[in-house]
Amino acid sequence: MDIATRVWNHKWKIDPIVRSLIDTDFYKLLMCQSVFRNKPDTQVTFSLINRSKSVRLAELIDEGELREQLDHIRSLSLSRGESTWMRGNTFYGKRQMFTPEFMDWFEGLRLPPYHLEKRDGQYELTFEGAWPEVMLWEIPALSVLMELRGRAVLGEMGRFELQVLYARAMTKLWEKIEKLRGLDDLKLADFGTRRRHSFMWQDWCVQAMCEGLGDKFIGTSNCLIAKNREVEAIGTNAHELPMVYSALAQGDEALARAPYDVLSDWHDEHEGNLRIILPDTYGTPGFLENAPDWLAGWTGIRIDSGDPATGAERAIAWWNERGEDPTQKLIIFSDGLDEDKIAELHQQFAGRVRVSFGWGTLLTNDFRGLVPDNALAPFSLVCKAISANGNPTVKLSDNPNKAMGPQSEIDRYKRVFGVGEQSTQEVLV
Amino acid sequence: MDIATRVWNHKWKIDPIVRSLIDTDFYKLLMCQSVFRNKPDTQVTFSLINRSKSVRLAELIDEGELREQLDHIRSLSLSRGESTWMRGNTFYGKRQMFTPEFMDWFEGLRLPPYHLEKRDGQYELTFEGAWPEVMLWEIPALSVLMELRGRAVLGEMGRFELQVLYARAMTKLWEKIEKLRGLDDLKLADFGTRRRHSFMWQDWCVQAMCEGLGDKFIGTSNCLIAKNREVEAIGTNAHELPMVYSALAQGDEALARAPYDVLSDWHDEHEGNLRIILPDTYGTPGFLENAPDWLAGWTGIRIDSGDPATGAERAIAWWNERGEDPTQKLIIFSDGLDEDKIAELHQQFAGRVRVSFGWGTLLTNDFRGLVPDNALAPFSLVCKAISANGNPTVKLSDNPNKAMGPQSEIDRYKRVFGVGEQSTQEVLV
Repeated sequence: MDIATRVWNHKWKIDPIVRSLIDTDFYKLLMCQSVFRNKPDTQVTFSLINRSKSVRLAELIDEGELREQLDHIRSLSLSRGESTWMRGNTFYGKRQMFTPEFMDWFEGLRLPPYHLEKRDGQYELTFEGAWPEVMLWEIPALSVLMELRGRAVLGEMGRFELQVLYARAMTKLWEKIEKLRGLDDLKLADFGTRRRHSFMWQDWCVQAMCEGLGDKFIGTSNCLIAKNREVEAIGTNAHELPMVYSALAQGDEALARAPYDVLSDWHDEHEGNLRIILPDTYGTPGFLENAPDWLAGWTGIRIDSGDPATGAERAIAWWNERGEDPTQKLIIFSDGLDEDKIAELHQQFAGRVRVSFGWGTLLTNDFRGLVPDNALAPFSLVCKAISANGNPTVKLSDNPNKAMGPQSEIDRYKRVFGVGEQSTQEVLV
Repeated sequence: MDIATRVWNHKWKIDPIVRSLIDTDFYKLLMCQSVFRNKPDTQVTFSLINRSKSVRLAELIDEGELREQLDHIRSLSLSRGESTWMRGNTFYGKRQMFTPEFMDWFEGLRLPPYHLEKRDGQYELTFEGAWPEVMLWEIPALSVLMELRGRAVLGEMGRFELQVLYARAMTKLWEKIEKLRGLDDLKLADFGTRRRHSFMWQDWCVQAMCEGLGDKFIGTSNCLIAKNREVEAIGTNAHELPMVYSALAQGDEALARAPYDVLSDWHDEHEGNLRIILPDTYGTPGFLENAPDWLAGWTGIRIDSGDPATGAERAIAWWNERGEDPTQKLIIFSDGLDEDKIAELHQQFAGRVRVSFGWGTLLTNDFRGLVPDNALAPFSLVCKAISANGNPTVKLSDNPNKAMGPQSEIDRYKRVFGVGEQSTQEVLV
């Protein structure tokens, strides 16, 4: 390292975890543009929710350090090169995915304030304001908390102990890659930004996948890494769209229509591989049964909760019912994947339908078993819209362990969407 | 990396493997000083011997590259800082271990020419000249051949594949360290220079041992690493002294006395923990039986061939016979060690005698099983004195698989030294 670099590094008051507004998931930017166009004035509240109560974040992470990291994120704005990339790069085969109007707004954006309190060993971290601004807090907030928790553990370790820790993590990932490279026609993307061990580790994982999997690795959800490493940025849409649209709906009839309104707006904006249905927000069976026919014409379905094989069979059956050819359709698995589950699903569905995988936490944060007390194991932290224009949001999911919202509203949604009995799955990450 | 460093690196025609005359074993320098004082004019031939015939070095290593590396070593001379360290550092508790006369000579030294030919897929590499100069070729010659063979394999690998290779090697070593750190009062040194995977890897191993073993790691045989990392330089003497002294002996009576003459010269030069007997050159039982009493007063014995537990029991019995207290004596194990063997010997002898371990090849080159076809596994390469003033040298060892010399001379030595039946051990490294 040269002297100037060393001196420059001395000047940092902190080691920032998130250093770019595009160190976020691609689908956040796609959704942000959709919200900016369709619902720019909606007032929302996002909130951090730690489903892993045993990980007492407020005891592990210093509040001052957390505030410094969050304040640093509020100081970020889009750099010239990042803007050029967003304006000029081809995404999903399309130029100018982001409109000049959206880019002008995004270039001027700073993230809005946050509210932070401690309660019962946990942080209560919330963000309030206009939906297109507040929604961009989700990914950096999660990344910061995951990485600060990691740093608290790593801070106690020796220099070579650290080297060996990363040596073990590299070996572990490489062994997964060696298993996966044997699967013919595999299509796999990195979806691990939000619960990654750290930015540098995610960056290493992406590069290792490029070398180890070649064409079988199709890209990353992380825009900054996609830009720096010149790989595809991958992602479509998420639960926050139907959750907020539903919270804004006036009356049961509008509520029943809300999830389809979301996709109608999306239909106007996107085509091809971006037309991916996320059907599980209020239960997949009812969603598919009541779906309009134009939705059956969409390219694919992302399966993000419930038993994935069951979800895929359900999707194939639905396409058959609607007269669509499943072999032309795409199923994206993105829930709780690891290499064995990927191999199993690939084996079961390859040939019957196009399949791809969005591999998240166990790609970018599988530090299970590498330190005593499993202190670096990933845990289930989310940051969700909890209200929109004063109304609480609700998620039912295909896994009741992932449901959220006030009980009276959950009951109402279950009735409106005709949700019957559901089986529960453990939420690991 | 700054620009100047990058440009500087462009200027290297080769990436030199050995970059310093003190990138060698400490005992080589001690022996060199002894030879410089006692036998400076002896003409010797050293020769490379690859005991692992299946590793066809001349097919793996380009002759031009090998010559470049050897030529580079011939261009080396002692640097000012290296000389200052040798003159000023404390070795085995003693200042000015190296005399001003020796240092003056060493500062002017360049290594003598080499002779290189290919035969039957192997390199015939020999060095001829004055003993104090030629003997210094042994360690760098071995290091160069081991590392060039490694580079031939590594050259085929991808960037992340390489990272994972080293990650696996680091993990493997760290797991050994984690086992060894549980042994109370362990004393362990690095003896792995000659058959190391590479200089940088040995340097990593030493640093990892410092952190992982603390006081249980007592130092390294490698002078350059000892200097750079500020750890003890460790080593005493080797078979080349009795082998050359014996080759110089006129008649059977002088031959029988030669191994003791070596130690008599050493006795005049060194004390304390440097008075370590290496008894196996012509069979340990006969050597101990015929040894003069003043040798029983020495500090310890190094066991470098044969079954190590048998050798240690033999040493303890000998000390008891000679009225010495074994608990005040030191046994150094240095042959074919790995963590399980170390733990076993430590368990068996701790408390009965002082014990330390010189851990070699399986410390600094345990790449077994890490690449296909085991192409990076260590192999048994040595570089030995084969003649002195025109007479062939002989080694019998406690393991007939390590014996060397013309058969007629082997028979004569066996008769003179009264060597009976010996049991053989496989020579792994």
